[in-house]
Amino acid sequence: MLELRLLQGSLLKKVLEAIKDLVTDANFDCSATGFSLQAMDSSHVALVALLLRSEGFEHYRCDRNLSMGMNLNNMSKMLKCAGNDDIITIKADDGGDTVTFMFESPNQDKISDFEMKLMDIDSEHLGIPETEYEAIIRMPSQEFARICRDLSSIGDTVVISASKEGVKFSTKGDIGSANVVCRQNTSVDKPEEATVIQIQQPVSLTFALRYMNSFTKATPLSNTVTISMSSELPIVVEYKIAEMGYIRFYLAPKIEEDEEVNS
Amino acid sequence: MLELRLLQGSLLKKVLEAIKDLVTDANFDCSATGFSLQAMDSSHVALVALLLRSEGFEHYRCDRNLSMGMNLNNMSKMLKCAGNDDIITIKADDGGDTVTFMFESPNQDKISDFEMKLMDIDSEHLGIPETEYEAIIRMPSQEFARICRDLSSIGDTVVISASKEGVKFSTKGDIGSANVVCRQNTSVDKPEEATVIQIQQPVSLTFALRYMNSFTKATPLSNTVTISMSSELPIVVEYKIAEMGYIRFYLAPKIEEDEEVNS
Amino acid sequence: MLELRLLQGSLLKKVLEAIKDLVTDANFDCSATGFSLQAMDSSHVALVALLLRSEGFEHYRCDRNLSMGMNLNNMSKMLKCAGNDDIITIKADDGGDTVTFMFESPNQDKISDFEMKLMDIDSEHLGIPETEYEAIIRMPSQEFARICRDLSSIGDTVVISASKEGVKFSTKGDIGSANVVCRQNTSVDKPEEATVIQIQQPVSLTFALRYMNSFTKATPLSNTVTISMSSELPIVVEYKIAEMGYIRFYLAPKIEEDEEVNS
Repeated sequence: MLELRLLQGSLLKKVLEAIKDLVTDANFDCSATGFSLQAMDSSHVALVALLLRSEGFEHYRCDRNLSMGMNLNNMSKMLKCAGNDDIITIKADDGGDTVTFMFESPNQDKISDFEMKLMDIDSEHLGIPETEYEAIIRMPSQEFARICRDLSSIGDTVVISASKEGVKFSTKGDIGSANVVCRQNTSVDKPEEATVIQIQQPVSLTFALRYMNSFTKATPLSNTVTISMSSELPIVVEYKIAEMGYIRFYLAPKIEEDEEVNS
Repeated sequence: MLELRLLQGSLLKKVLEAIKDLVTDANFDCSATGFSLQAMDSSHVALVALLLRSEGFEHYRCDRNLSMGMNLNNMSKMLKCAGNDDIITIKADDGGDTVTFMFESPNQDKISDFEMKLMDIDSEHLGIPETEYEAIIRMPSQEFARICRDLSSIGDTVVISASKEGVKFSTKGDIGSANVVCRQNTSVDKPEEATVIQIQQPVSLTFALRYMNSFTKATPLSNTVTISMSSELPIVVEYKIAEMGYIRFYLAPKIEEDEEVNS
Repeated sequence: MLELRLLQGSLLKKVLEAIKDLVTDANFDCSATGFSLQAMDSSHVALVALLLRSEGFEHYRCDRNLSMGMNLNNMSKMLKCAGNDDIITIKADDGGDTVTFMFESPNQDKISDFEMKLMDIDSEHLGIPETEYEAIIRMPSQEFARICRDLSSIGDTVVISASKEGVKFSTKGDIGSANVVCRQNTSVDKPEEATVIQIQQPVSLTFALRYMNSFTKATPLSNTVTISMSSELPIVVEYKIAEMGYIRFYLAPKIEEDEEVNS
């Protein structure tokens, strides 16, 4: 039997909004450690990894490991029916073919049960090796979202170049070109407004803006985003989920030939 | 001659927004008692009854009973041109074929006259018998609107079941099922946040969510909604209009056969 | 070389939003006096004239007169990437075929360069003679915008009639007719809320509401609008740009025959 009670139900609502446009169907995996998901986007280009650690739940009971296949669009429809202050409990029986989301309003006057059918989804779990990245950028998540959205009005791809001084986002398109430079800045009033760059060597990689914009759907989950890059490795765009875990998005860089074909 | 001056003009704006999606053309009836309307929706399934009592108007002159046929969509276009703080006066001549809406801004600097052609509309006035209902539920109108909207994302019909403990709204659809229970709750800070259930015997009836959602367009008119139900009688969904009257929506329950065909 | 630095970058953003729906491509003219534009709308009915005086810029360098042809839609896309508090600098080389917009965030942490290709645009500069107008109306810009929008829901043209007492906006359409009267009012708390009418003789002219509504896109630039009218002359709708200049829209009145054809 599975019973996971999350006081801050809005977190789960935001998680679904962050991934449902990228991933259609996916297996949620439950174990003693936590509630997690790993899935490729529908065009098999980007990878999403979610972890909500068991300690973050007010009550966490998972008698044996369970993998529950869900349609994320349907799951999102149900979670949208939870109030932002509701407590959400996820329930499932070990052999069952349904999952139940229970929403309790803060004053316990309104209790909702939404039952959803589970699906069988084939999926292989990719091992993602721990890597030391050449450049790690932490910056305000809204700033990153704004830059990705702005550059999309000019071009299709973004070149992200990290150096000690700052990080540069560049694009080109039919109507012209654009460069946005964010300087390293640690002397800010609030730590979440800092832009911090850890560099082992300068890196410059090219990515499809369409995916970057999808990733920024996770912005409401965290004030900051951490971007990790190494030449020839997928970029990691990570949003921490307060005291519970993270959503990480992985995307392979475009190689030079791609760029020329597209430009 | 007819001249009705309403200080709180926004009320009339809200009334139109509440009914214009349900009813296309309707007769507004003016008498010494008040300004009223009774109309079926275009598919002849739901009934709307509006009453604005004469005492609620700052000035109310109605020399003889008048029935004025109006296209509600056009009337709404004109009322949208009134500011929310404007005083609205409805004027008509006894034999005339037009009605005039006059809007006065609070400081009297801006005066608008909108003249609309009247229509001939056949309609029969249904006598609605006074009934004792088996269950009467009073609850926050926004809560009711939220539940109807939420359940529409799962199914097409709602089963409303009232008992002493509370009221349950249930639906079923392709992606799963949902139950929302609101408990009786009278110990709240503000009386308009209470959920009060008067029961003579438990009732459970099924309705089309499409109509329920139309009725909730009246939510801005009142903080609370009153739902009256008896087996085999149409449900009444009533929004009180402060110190003036009400909008009531009537809808026949779906019978068992319907449910099976649809489910 | 051209280098114009504008501390209040949001002004330029608003200017583009005000004219980009009316004008597709236009030459921006730079001289020692200022940054200006004169253009007909795409159907050659309305004329826009913009002036941003050199004194309004924090830094204004214009070595020789330059005329830069720009697609306003593309220019608007780029300016939308500037933050509302950003400083905007416009840069161009004398013989070059590009213009660069530089955006600096208030704390200088983020610097963006957007480069846009220039176009060759044929245009003749019309001399607009200085005229004494028979009626000049100054009124709150939001009020004027609201009236134009409201009347558009009833008819296609507006008759604007100015007299000592006030200004009347009238329209007619299939569903009825409307008159909105704004009285002269100079005794208001804030000067920008006044409606001031200077009359040499009463004037009444008819205009297409479609264009009037386009002009009101400039509303965010100024709290007040000034409307100048004389019989048989184009109306002038002017929005002052604080301490820098103005946007003026010119539109010829419809003649009687037009009205009858359209009504």
